[in-house]
Amino acid sequence: MDFAEDLIMIGQRAKNAARKLAFTGTETKNKALLAMAQALLDNQDAILEANVLDITAAEEKGLKKSLINRLRLTSAGIADISNAIKEVVGLPDPVGGGELWKRPNGLVIQKTMVPLGVVAMIYEARPNVTVDAAALCLKSGNACILRGGSEAIESNKVLARVISEAAEQNGIPEGAIQLIPKTDRAYALQLMRMNKYIDVIIPRGGAGLIRTVVENSTVPVIETGTGVCHAYVDLDADYEKAVSVVFNAKTQKPGVCNALETLLVHEAVAEEYLPMIGKKFKAYGVEIRGCDRVRKILDYAVPATEEDWSTEYLDLIISVKVVNSIDEALDHIYTYSTKHSETIITENYTASQRFLNEIDAAAVYVNASTRFTDGGRFGFGAEIGISTQKLHARGPMALPELTTIKYIVYGNGHIVE
Amino acid sequence: MDFAEDLIMIGQRAKNAARKLAFTGTETKNKALLAMAQALLDNQDAILEANVLDITAAEEKGLKKSLINRLRLTSAGIADISNAIKEVVGLPDPVGGGELWKRPNGLVIQKTMVPLGVVAMIYEARPNVTVDAAALCLKSGNACILRGGSEAIESNKVLARVISEAAEQNGIPEGAIQLIPKTDRAYALQLMRMNKYIDVIIPRGGAGLIRTVVENSTVPVIETGTGVCHAYVDLDADYEKAVSVVFNAKTQKPGVCNALETLLVHEAVAEEYLPMIGKKFKAYGVEIRGCDRVRKILDYAVPATEEDWSTEYLDLIISVKVVNSIDEALDHIYTYSTKHSETIITENYTASQRFLNEIDAAAVYVNASTRFTDGGRFGFGAEIGISTQKLHARGPMALPELTTIKYIVYGNGHIVE
Repeated sequence: MDFAEDLIMIGQRAKNAARKLAFTGTETKNKALLAMAQALLDNQDAILEANVLDITAAEEKGLKKSLINRLRLTSAGIADISNAIKEVVGLPDPVGGGELWKRPNGLVIQKTMVPLGVVAMIYEARPNVTVDAAALCLKSGNACILRGGSEAIESNKVLARVISEAAEQNGIPEGAIQLIPKTDRAYALQLMRMNKYIDVIIPRGGAGLIRTVVENSTVPVIETGTGVCHAYVDLDADYEKAVSVVFNAKTQKPGVCNALETLLVHEAVAEEYLPMIGKKFKAYGVEIRGCDRVRKILDYAVPATEEDWSTEYLDLIISVKVVNSIDEALDHIYTYSTKHSETIITENYTASQRFLNEIDAAAVYVNASTRFTDGGRFGFGAEIGISTQKLHARGPMALPELTTIKYIVYGNGHIVE
Repeated sequence: MDFAEDLIMIGQRAKNAARKLAFTGTETKNKALLAMAQALLDNQDAILEANVLDITAAEEKGLKKSLINRLRLTSAGIADISNAIKEVVGLPDPVGGGELWKRPNGLVIQKTMVPLGVVAMIYEARPNVTVDAAALCLKSGNACILRGGSEAIESNKVLARVISEAAEQNGIPEGAIQLIPKTDRAYALQLMRMNKYIDVIIPRGGAGLIRTVVENSTVPVIETGTGVCHAYVDLDADYEKAVSVVFNAKTQKPGVCNALETLLVHEAVAEEYLPMIGKKFKAYGVEIRGCDRVRKILDYAVPATEEDWSTEYLDLIISVKVVNSIDEALDHIYTYSTKHSETIITENYTASQRFLNEIDAAAVYVNASTRFTDGGRFGFGAEIGISTQKLHARGPMALPELTTIKYIVYGNGHIVE
């Protein structure tokens, strides 16, 4: 049997489910979410068994240890995933509500929020995304089609089966949560062109995955992720803040998109500041790739190439450049930024205002770590990704970003003159 | 010289302009808009001369009269276009403002609105779009790249030159308003892949143009326009409203996307209602394409084919079908709707609520004409298009839809633990 046709059927089922899900009440959705959370705990053995298959295959393929760690599930990990669903239960339902106004002719217009419809997620190794995405889509009334990476396919299949069964047994329409059981690239490409069935595709993963989706998808895409984040240490920086914020942004979790990749330092403070942060980086094993002026001050820095300025290392590496002025810093960020998160360290009012106004990014900071760009840390209670595009959503995306507008208009025989 | 390279330069100039325009104040933008409005009046002769070239070329090519009428500019038409700019001056600036909240750790987060950056508009015959789009983009702080149709190229060139010169003489950065002087398809396709320079593409025109942009663009697109709009006359309809609303929706301006294309009638009222509306349609020269049951009641109706149910006529033609129930009406609309505007005519509370809740469209109406789906009629003061997609904007788009989010975060040495 041809799987290309199966994929159309998955799309059709999702579309049918979405039609019903759009007016399924919050109580039903919450009850189903709680059942999903419980089902993960009840089926822990089956999930762990499937996960062993993925881990074994990954080890046989010789995958990197960091990747294998991302794949691995444990009892505690499953409990965390289950608890994450319970947190979604506690969040407000983004569907419904909205403003209402009356036009001079008596027509009443209500702008209300409705689900997007069918959301497809294309993601990589971590199996928890399967459950997180399904829970957020369900709470916002969307059907989801999940396409995880091949490394996690056995874990994903069991996770998706367990949660979709629990959902369907609790009033959620059949087809609301579906995993694509095949990870061939051809089917992912087919998915990206199924405009008839899918309302939006959200890719989550590395730069390569995101580029593939953006270049091939005719379905609207919400781009997430790539972050070449900068810190600029101004001539009026407080050194203590400059050391702790920059060190935190680079090292607290280097493998994520809001981690720092490039440090720009004003020439007036370079000789004092660079040795302070350099010493901390060196002790922590962070490789410094510096411009010529940095290397005159830090003899252990290796030379930065042009490519370094646009590289998202996601690792214990940082590119460092000395700049003549805030203008040079703004120009550098304008040229190399992926418009994710940028921070300035300064005590100067005008410098902070210029940075906040002139930098074009999802999040701009004064005297704080770029690592705060996160749905939870912003207070949204959840996160389905961090948008680095400008349409629809920008920055951390939570439940409201999974809805769209519907105008409801109450007339009484109104016609246009 | 290779125009492909010129197009890159246009993109670069727009990007440079957008960077400055993002923090150009409302007063400067309004002053420039007023100058643009005046410049159109001052340069009326040059505009009309150029328009004669377009009209002559169109007549020589034997274009349809309706299309030639859309191309034609007059003194009064130029005054209207000039006045439309003045109305944009009166609208609130969508840039800036927004909510602000404090996190438990003391971090203050501000969600503010900023321009999208560079907006490309791809449109067809009507030269007024050149000015409308430029004015709305300028007011919202966006640079614009305009690519109009070949039929209006001479008019568009003069219009764009006149308004961009007036803008630049009044504090607007060079390159903020640019028209692409060549209308070859190859350059339009190149534009659709200039992600480095363009933040969003908005196509305005027929279904063919919109499909081409959706299928070929890697730049994010806001889809506008196609409307296969339905009216469902319920068994509890008030006949008077049903006749006047349906007649209005079909005939008041048949060439636009919010005009009615399909009429569904409940079988219980078909024998009484169809002759009433049929008589009015017949007298007005509206062709009725009906299902078999319609044709038994209206012998002058021609047979509807399967294709008719998904056709946007934009003409004095309507497809008409008798349905057994509201469920059949909802199913029909679910199958054939382009999710633009749909209306129910009923006095029944439950039927109205089901229609409003279950129909998935940008605008759903009770007892009112679909022709109200319009930025001006909704009270938005302006309209850059009507979005029929779900991401970013849905329904009439005005100035706020030309902005995106920027999170500004005020810290005091905050780091992530």
